Amino acid sequence: MLSGALEVMLGFMGEFDLIETFFKRPPRHAVLGVGDDCALLAVKSGQQLAISSDMLVEGRHFLSTANPLHLGHKALAVNLSDLAACGALPKAFLLSLALPEVVPQWLSEFSKGLWALADLHQCDLVGGDTTRGPLNICITVLGEVPAQQALLRHGAQVGDDIYVSGHLGDARLALEVFRGTLSVPQSVFEAARLRMDKPTPRVELGLALRGLAHAAIDISDGLLGDLQHILKASAVGAEVDTQQVLSTMACAQNSGLHQDDLLRLTLAGGDDYELVFTAPENQRKAIANASLSSNTPVTRIGKITASPQLTLLDNEGQPLRHTFDSFDHFKTP
Amino acid sequence: MLSGALEVMLGFMGEFDLIETFFKRPPRHAVLGVGDDCALLAVKSGQQLAISSDMLVEGRHFLSTANPLHLGHKALAVNLSDLAACGALPKAFLLSLALPEVVPQWLSEFSKGLWALADLHQCDLVGGDTTRGPLNICITVLGEVPAQQALLRHGAQVGDDIYVSGHLGDARLALEVFRGTLSVPQSVFEAARLRMDKPTPRVELGLALRGLAHAAIDISDGLLGDLQHILKASAVGAEVDTQQVLSTMACAQNSGLHQDDLLRLTLAGGDDYELVFTAPENQRKAIANASLSSNTPVTRIGKITASPQLTLLDNEGQPLRHTFDSFDHFKTP
Repeated sequence: MLSGALEVMLGFMGEFDLIETFFKRPPRHAVLGVGDDCALLAVKSGQQLAISSDMLVEGRHFLSTANPLHLGHKALAVNLSDLAACGALPKAFLLSLALPEVVPQWLSEFSKGLWALADLHQCDLVGGDTTRGPLNICITVLGEVPAQQALLRHGAQVGDDIYVSGHLGDARLALEVFRGTLSVPQSVFEAARLRMDKPTPRVELGLALRGLAHAAIDISDGLLGDLQHILKASAVGAEVDTQQVLSTMACAQNSGLHQDDLLRLTLAGGDDYELVFTAPENQRKAIANASLSSNTPVTRIGKITASPQLTLLDNEGQPLRHTFDSFDHFKTP
Repeated sequence: MLSGALEVMLGFMGEFDLIETFFKRPPRHAVLGVGDDCALLAVKSGQQLAISSDMLVEGRHFLSTANPLHLGHKALAVNLSDLAACGALPKAFLLSLALPEVVPQWLSEFSKGLWALADLHQCDLVGGDTTRGPLNICITVLGEVPAQQALLRHGAQVGDDIYVSGHLGDARLALEVFRGTLSVPQSVFEAARLRMDKPTPRVELGLALRGLAHAAIDISDGLLGDLQHILKASAVGAEVDTQQVLSTMACAQNSGLHQDDLLRLTLAGGDDYELVFTAPENQRKAIANASLSSNTPVTRIGKITASPQLTLLDNEGQPLRHTFDSFDHFKTP
């Protein structure tokens, strides 16, 4: 590694040195990790492989000023969140990285953030690619889930309770303050920004919901938009209690913002990486236990209905007429 | 899909319409394909999963003028080539795509090229991501290989023959003509360009080499550079007969170029997506049969040696003194 280290100092780091220095470690689960044409993974008998891929682009998913330590965390977190939504146990991931230039300090911080979260979930980095180009981070994550036990979108049933994990609206609050469309006290902004930069993938909750939840999805595009995916796939509707949704706010709670803004942030904010899921009424105690055992707050926010629309209820149980668009990576500015 | 079609015409295509229109088909192998948080894959007992990821960036891996039909082919081909190098049977892939804008005509051609190759190898598109950003194509491919039978880099043994598949140097020839550093007749350029744009992943050969080859890698960065990975991983050296290497040329054969240029193109060209592999001398007949059964030309180009260096031999069997750098995505302009 001496010549690698020297090249870094000279600013002539090549693709192979870069991988060796920042992204190569012996795997714990995989049969074969970084350094061959393919990684090799053994899948236990009775288990299926859950796979998901997310691509993060500078200027769209993160700001050019993003702290690379947080970015390394977030790039993996949004992928682990997809595994969580399926109730899968993280096993391995591949990282493909396009970099405009090789800045060892940036890479060192980025990989530190990435490894910290990977270690927390004992998830092996087993392969990927590095190249020069506009900053782009593409991670593919692989997890195991027992056959027939994956949490999917299409299992919601009429009468199911609807729940969300954790806290909604914080990430979008931070983004809107950045954009200058909302204004909040500095301490609120700082807390919201940390939630935007370092989302917590709800892996443990997803695992605890196996066999309990009928349907689940993670909230990346906003609660309503993502809940709609469950409704469409399950051919059902929903009534959502907006007061319960507002009660999930963490940072936004003390922001002094108008109720309409708070509703927009929590219902259609996006970038939350919480889980929204449904479960039958007779599992309320089990859901509470899953929340406790996974150390993850869970809030019951509504019911699945037979009529196919999604209805928002106000604090008197009356339908709200306002609509909230979800976040779309192509449609929003 | 009517509203989707309308939105295309109006130029307001969103992320979900884009996926529905161009990238969603029922999977053949996967338990669950596009449309949930994760895809689900069942892996047969006794099989391991081979996984690889490649990222293609405009201006670095392909020109902005690239035919999208060919680009769809190539993006998947370079990934299948990694599976081929491991002797794995393609099963599924994920496509993550950053697009500067949504151009239905471009997407239609791109997906056509992608599907044609995917269908040829019965490889399911099971997931991925789409977002707006500088054009970037990241594919992760998954294949099956029986436990202990994957072809790896570290198995080369002293005395092994070294082989390459197919034809070397064509892709780099086309690139250098584009760059204006080499000049060839138009018909030679057209043929070379097609080889650059539509490489053939040597999947069938890779499968036929299971149990025969001691080590294998696919040639993306140039024969010498990639062979060096085998030598380093196996702690051996090699003697390579440059006349045999030159004999693998297809388009470059009749290009009228100087021998030094031809050597550079074939030895260090890159973007070939051929396999270089080693096998014991007593398997020459079996290798010939593997070549026949997979309908893939194979040329014996040298020997694995105990002394750790890579020596190039001229047409009189004398060592060449010239060195050839391999292609590095960070170091080359």
